[in-house]
Amino acid sequence: MSDHLFDQAISLSGTPQSRTNTISPAYQNMVGPFGGVTAATLLNAVMTHPDVIGSPVSMTVNYLGPIVTDEITIKPKLVRTNRSNQHWILEVFCDDDMVLTSLMIFGSRVESWTDTDLVFPQAASHEQLKSMPTDNLPPWPQQYDMRFVKGNPFASPAETLAEPSSESLQWTADRPPRKLDFASLTALSDAMFPRLFVHQRAVVPVGTVTLTIYFHVAAAELEELPSPWVLTHVRAGKFSNSYFDHTGELWSEDGRLLVTTNQMAYYKY
Amino acid sequence: MSDHLFDQAISLSGTPQSRTNTISPAYQNMVGPFGGVTAATLLNAVMTHPDVIGSPVSMTVNYLGPIVTDEITIKPKLVRTNRSNQHWILEVFCDDDMVLTSLMIFGSRVESWTDTDLVFPQAASHEQLKSMPTDNLPPWPQQYDMRFVKGNPFASPAETLAEPSSESLQWTADRPPRKLDFASLTALSDAMFPRLFVHQRAVVPVGTVTLTIYFHVAAAELEELPSPWVLTHVRAGKFSNSYFDHTGELWSEDGRLLVTTNQMAYYKY
Repeated sequence: MSDHLFDQAISLSGTPQSRTNTISPAYQNMVGPFGGVTAATLLNAVMTHPDVIGSPVSMTVNYLGPIVTDEITIKPKLVRTNRSNQHWILEVFCDDDMVLTSLMIFGSRVESWTDTDLVFPQAASHEQLKSMPTDNLPPWPQQYDMRFVKGNPFASPAETLAEPSSESLQWTADRPPRKLDFASLTALSDAMFPRLFVHQRAVVPVGTVTLTIYFHVAAAELEELPSPWVLTHVRAGKFSNSYFDHTGELWSEDGRLLVTTNQMAYYKY
Repeated sequence: MSDHLFDQAISLSGTPQSRTNTISPAYQNMVGPFGGVTAATLLNAVMTHPDVIGSPVSMTVNYLGPIVTDEITIKPKLVRTNRSNQHWILEVFCDDDMVLTSLMIFGSRVESWTDTDLVFPQAASHEQLKSMPTDNLPPWPQQYDMRFVKGNPFASPAETLAEPSSESLQWTADRPPRKLDFASLTALSDAMFPRLFVHQRAVVPVGTVTLTIYFHVAAAELEELPSPWVLTHVRAGKFSNSYFDHTGELWSEDGRLLVTTNQMAYYKY
């Protein structure tokens, strides 16, 4: 195992049918662990399962309640294998309480006609931008180098509240840098601050209840990526009746669409 | 029960723990039933469950394989009830084969600060547009009145292939008209043609493997809607290695964002 804190955080013991993960203090959030690393840990439980075929196509993780124990037990179940894909259901427990559910699809990605309809956002390069200070933040953002083109929720409000927007455009890389793989892309798909913080500059109770990630690269393509940086573009759809959604994309530094992702979060405001 | 074909199509018998749905011939697609009505049937199994609390917040449905039998058996399992929301897992079978899995969140939607960041698309009204002819299409599109502002996959290619795009903007209503509810919004969230058909004007093998829907209205708000029409805006992200995604929004005629939805589909092309 690599000695990167991320690899330690997603590491597993136990049997393929019942995996144990010890919660890493390095990736804690305000209450419980950062959901992105939790999702990556679930993906890791399937990627290292002896029956897995292919690479991840999609995953949905639902967050049922806070993880208050020092470890979680992950139970992956392979429910169907087709000619070109596989379907998994995961149930995850703190002691006897179910805390996470997940559906995943793995597939053999074969070559096909290719087209990217979304457009790589115009952005200054990460070399031209400053890293966001993380001094007063929980542990998890300290494991990332985040450089904002737009929508830093901790920037001076005067700069940005004239026209409130939920949009962020940010470069993000693991700190220290780590080669991108499916597990880190999963965590990076949740490595944004809540859109409510960005739009309103209000740090209020928010919790993701469901996260969906679609993977747009096959394993071989990950090998070709030029750097550990992703350019993340994310914005909310609607805040209403105590839930809001967001839609995001993660791009490689050479302009490939790696992931599209969506989530719904609960809020009190 | 209403005598609308949609209500017949999503109707259920059996016990709350094991519901049977008879596949409606009216909503068949090329192979098996239209996935939107299947998703609505699953939602109906939870909405009519005696233990349900609140209204739907999010649902993900994974399509594991074709439904080749005359009926399906739906097994909803309530896995956690919190103070303000509920988590469900559903497994669905054709005889002994699992054909669908689903995760749903239901919540008590309480009033909160509200803001819609997405913008209601500019579009001619449905009265000014012609209904899409459905003569040569499978049964399911015949149950909808679809009127395209943009991105009709069956329009003359010359009009639209000069600048290929996967974007559609369409008005859709049940035929005959039916008051919008959570079940019909679920089906309407899949009532678009595959983005590959729109972009390439090629009718090739395509199948949705996963569909996610976020609901942005509470039950009371549905009562206020002015008409059975929704304005659907949808476009692909990336077509690559035999899978593509799309992102969509459904708006009411009076400009409310009702639903945001995403899916990933398999294709051969």
